[in-house]
Amino acid sequence: MQVNSLLRYSRACPFLGRSSASSLNALAQVGGSNGRASALTLKAGECPMLGPQIRRGYASVAGNREVEEIHKKKDIAFDAVGTTADKCPHATAARAAAAATQRTTDKAPEVTSAPERAAGTFNYEQFYQTELDKKHKDKSYRYFNNINRMAAKFPVAHTADPKVQVDVWCANDYLGMGKNPVVLDTMKRTLNKYGAGAGGTRNIAGNGALHLALEKELASLHRKDAALVFSSCYVANDACLATIGAKLPGCVIFSDSLNHASMIQGVRHSNAKKVIWKHNDMADLEAKLQQVPKETPKIIAFESVYSMCGSVAPIEAICDLAEKYGAITFLDEVHAVGMYGPSGAGVAEHLDFAAHYATRESSSPVPRSVQDRIDIITGTLGKAYGVVGGYIAGSSDLVDVVRSYAPGFIFTTSLPPAVVAGAQVSIAYQKETMSDRRLQQLNTRTVKGRFADLGIPVVPNPSHIVPVLVGDAALAKQASDLLLSEHHIYVQSINYPTVPVGEERLRITPTPGHTAEQVEHLVASVDSVFNKLNLKRQADWVAVGGRAGVGAPNAAPLEPIWSDAQLGLQDGTAPVQLAAGSKSIVTDSAVQVANKRLTHLIDVGPRLGSSEASA
Amino acid sequence: MQVNSLLRYSRACPFLGRSSASSLNALAQVGGSNGRASALTLKAGECPMLGPQIRRGYASVAGNREVEEIHKKKDIAFDAVGTTADKCPHATAARAAAAATQRTTDKAPEVTSAPERAAGTFNYEQFYQTELDKKHKDKSYRYFNNINRMAAKFPVAHTADPKVQVDVWCANDYLGMGKNPVVLDTMKRTLNKYGAGAGGTRNIAGNGALHLALEKELASLHRKDAALVFSSCYVANDACLATIGAKLPGCVIFSDSLNHASMIQGVRHSNAKKVIWKHNDMADLEAKLQQVPKETPKIIAFESVYSMCGSVAPIEAICDLAEKYGAITFLDEVHAVGMYGPSGAGVAEHLDFAAHYATRESSSPVPRSVQDRIDIITGTLGKAYGVVGGYIAGSSDLVDVVRSYAPGFIFTTSLPPAVVAGAQVSIAYQKETMSDRRLQQLNTRTVKGRFADLGIPVVPNPSHIVPVLVGDAALAKQASDLLLSEHHIYVQSINYPTVPVGEERLRITPTPGHTAEQVEHLVASVDSVFNKLNLKRQADWVAVGGRAGVGAPNAAPLEPIWSDAQLGLQDGTAPVQLAAGSKSIVTDSAVQVANKRLTHLIDVGPRLGSSEASA
Repeated sequence: MQVNSLLRYSRACPFLGRSSASSLNALAQVGGSNGRASALTLKAGECPMLGPQIRRGYASVAGNREVEEIHKKKDIAFDAVGTTADKCPHATAARAAAAATQRTTDKAPEVTSAPERAAGTFNYEQFYQTELDKKHKDKSYRYFNNINRMAAKFPVAHTADPKVQVDVWCANDYLGMGKNPVVLDTMKRTLNKYGAGAGGTRNIAGNGALHLALEKELASLHRKDAALVFSSCYVANDACLATIGAKLPGCVIFSDSLNHASMIQGVRHSNAKKVIWKHNDMADLEAKLQQVPKETPKIIAFESVYSMCGSVAPIEAICDLAEKYGAITFLDEVHAVGMYGPSGAGVAEHLDFAAHYATRESSSPVPRSVQDRIDIITGTLGKAYGVVGGYIAGSSDLVDVVRSYAPGFIFTTSLPPAVVAGAQVSIAYQKETMSDRRLQQLNTRTVKGRFADLGIPVVPNPSHIVPVLVGDAALAKQASDLLLSEHHIYVQSINYPTVPVGEERLRITPTPGHTAEQVEHLVASVDSVFNKLNLKRQADWVAVGGRAGVGAPNAAPLEPIWSDAQLGLQDGTAPVQLAAGSKSIVTDSAVQVANKRLTHLIDVGPRLGSSEASA
Repeated sequence: MQVNSLLRYSRACPFLGRSSASSLNALAQVGGSNGRASALTLKAGECPMLGPQIRRGYASVAGNREVEEIHKKKDIAFDAVGTTADKCPHATAARAAAAATQRTTDKAPEVTSAPERAAGTFNYEQFYQTELDKKHKDKSYRYFNNINRMAAKFPVAHTADPKVQVDVWCANDYLGMGKNPVVLDTMKRTLNKYGAGAGGTRNIAGNGALHLALEKELASLHRKDAALVFSSCYVANDACLATIGAKLPGCVIFSDSLNHASMIQGVRHSNAKKVIWKHNDMADLEAKLQQVPKETPKIIAFESVYSMCGSVAPIEAICDLAEKYGAITFLDEVHAVGMYGPSGAGVAEHLDFAAHYATRESSSPVPRSVQDRIDIITGTLGKAYGVVGGYIAGSSDLVDVVRSYAPGFIFTTSLPPAVVAGAQVSIAYQKETMSDRRLQQLNTRTVKGRFADLGIPVVPNPSHIVPVLVGDAALAKQASDLLLSEHHIYVQSINYPTVPVGEERLRITPTPGHTAEQVEHLVASVDSVFNKLNLKRQADWVAVGGRAGVGAPNAAPLEPIWSDAQLGLQDGTAPVQLAAGSKSIVTDSAVQVANKRLTHLIDVGPRLGSSEASA
């Protein structure tokens, strides 16, 4: 009963609400006697909503009844905090959730009756609680922020309270294509013509001209024979590696130690032998390749841009090793497509920038280009391209094998026509203009430079990711919460297991849509939070010998992937950072090219003209 | 060079184009001397485009050059066939593809340069070809039809040629929600307000009020504490079973022998012990449950409606066994949500139809309802609800464990706001009205009845699926091709491995949008194709002792899940089949309820009024 009583109250709490009964009970029983606050009180004290009240008056409320007590005081707490509470994400979330309940459901939640399992059988609910407690204990339990990115105000979102708006600095809609009018217009026209969903698998009623056109566009983007679209790139990586790794007889998969979860799962699901090589370490990779017979099939699986640290793979050197040891290469360009290369095809294209740029208008190949030397490229339609979905690109037969054998491709409803069409025009648009990705890089340089001036520690990297090192799970979350509640800036903290313990960070992703004022506000806010929480600066990390690449001794300086010349800084063609109140740049010629792609299929209603194309 | 030469020509062929070089070479070398046609000629003769020409004049073209010869004659063949060729799906696909190439790309496809692997290393391309040849040889190679379902003409689609239109009779947009104006309007308004994509994972920038509202709607639909949305129900099933199956110590998963591929994969990925029980066989399930200690955690995984045969699980009996032996139940309602029950929650809800119907307006639970006795319900947003995505629903802690531990949920971009909002209004709409699912069932009864009158063999079942038995892979494909080319009806043939060899079928799915005329045209066309191909009728299967449940001796008659009373046939409230030219029914009250759901979040631009709500 104590547990049930605790639960009943804590469930209503936006901060403790997801804690299990056993977790709360355990916390309440740690300390909490002789006038000392229990662990539960201390935990409750972390709550941005009630914490100040607890510290002022309720710290002595002890034992099992304390959650109840705290929540009895909730209204007082709200009153006391007054307008400040409106800025608190937990308080506003709680209010909005309560309001939303009234508005969105026409009846109260129903009480469910659980199955009545025989005595002596396994206690499932208790087991689930134990598993959740582990997450709470190691601080890896995730609280999702309620963030609603508004197309017309990009990169601004509202929180649970539609009136509370924040600058988003951690989304993967890197280029703002999610609000690009040519994408939105195409999707709306496609909805009108082809409806909301595909209505079937690719094999049964869910394969249309738009799916085929997108795959053709993707194959062309990466200069491959064929491409295949999946529900997501998570599914694409998992399905492709699992299928090819399982099919190739005796296959050994060489996997970079920082590979994404989707690739790790794909390797696991293939049941192939897995060899993990040190992140970006060519000597280690070669030493491991040498240990496998030359005729044995091998896959080298890696990413171009590693999203949590921003490091970039030595793609060409990996191709050299792959050819030497008879491996195929599997390159995940998820964080790079749309962002690098003259066509936006990714880092592999970017490595032959001038040559690919020169052939954009012709069909002539670039002999021995890095991109052509990669066997399988995977990418997403949900980050720089702003929609959702994933794909693989490669030789016709490779793609056909995956198409023919991968259950994760075969047995699932295909992506909606509107999603597929929106993704294709987004790709076409980004093939045609470099403005967005150039401005994204320039903003990245500005943010990194301003942080460097202030000694804010950024994990050094040559890409568009700005990982600000905090180095502690609780502090990283506090920093994120403070940015949100006091500065109206949303940057999610990244904790274990996404990054190693001790390397917790704020992962910042500039976009071309961030104005000069928003950049300055970010820099000043992060600086303020670093002061308030007394977080380690660059010099502090140097003093302790460095961490996660920050302050490492004898580190060689890194050149950004985009050179000054490629950014247009030498010939004066570089795009200019937006000022407050100015509209996002929409490139008319790119709109026209993108529009042309699907006109014959979705020509319903008036097309978007360049005059309407400013968001 | 022979292989390359063959390939170059065959790649252009819509029929042979996906055959690998080795496959073509092998076919060409079987037979093909002394004036006899080679296997390749015979295969080419199956082509609906060139077959008649080959049979008339080119059958003696032999050896490696025959594909080349056939395609040299292609233009002649086109001319000869004349307007008939326009009806051939392969010919029109080829033409449209050629035209689309000119319209959608601004340059010719580029030649790619392949990696140059060291001598003596594995030949990957040859291996891929071998794998594809296996598919060709066992007739399981899939050719995707190009089908573009048009919202304004539901259930009509155009083929690769936008001028060629067909009635779709095999989509899983069972209720036509994919073209329902309240869904389309909501999606367009959401696109305007929140853009094209979510921009991140649920943990990082991709969690918004719309996602939370959808999960609340789903939890309420199934009367569970919580729900969680995934990219698809394939991912939901895979991630949930893999995570829970792996976590529960020593877990044994009992899996129905006809379970969907996604559940099979989830079980495999859990690495838990798997026990397969005979489809819907309670004695077999109980015998197998008895063999595992009572305290061992167990999952019984099954579906409510099995989509390829239309059979329905004895859900209540399974709950009894689960409680007796201490198992949790995992029920996939993918083909049932939206389709059964007074709220559209699925078969589990339908089993307590009257009780649930009575409590629709109140919050009182139905004691020991079948739905409440199920631990985990999974469903899709991409079939009856007409959009895309999947979900699980269950207890708070169960859902939180999956949310916290499943990589397939955590590490992927969340569904776009427009998709999520569209799905929610679709669910809300179907909660409010039974018209669509009642009319769907009535049309199913009509189609099954008309087929029975003509002796067209339908696999007996109590659900909305109409599986017409053909019993041979080649004949099933021919029947599907004939329906498409000669009758403008699209019904995909279902072959191995989706169904067992010898049980190949045409899977027909009626919708409320099919008019009386379209039903008659379907029945007459299937009858005609059965005559033309001399396919076995009901009596023929009876004569051979039955197959796949058709013509089985002593089979008990099956009562449909929807009773006459539930369909409104007894009180005169049953909806009336549409006549040619009449518009789909849109239930105004349901539109209003659905609209209310998200108004506070997406109230941009004029809302859809009931006057505009007829499609």
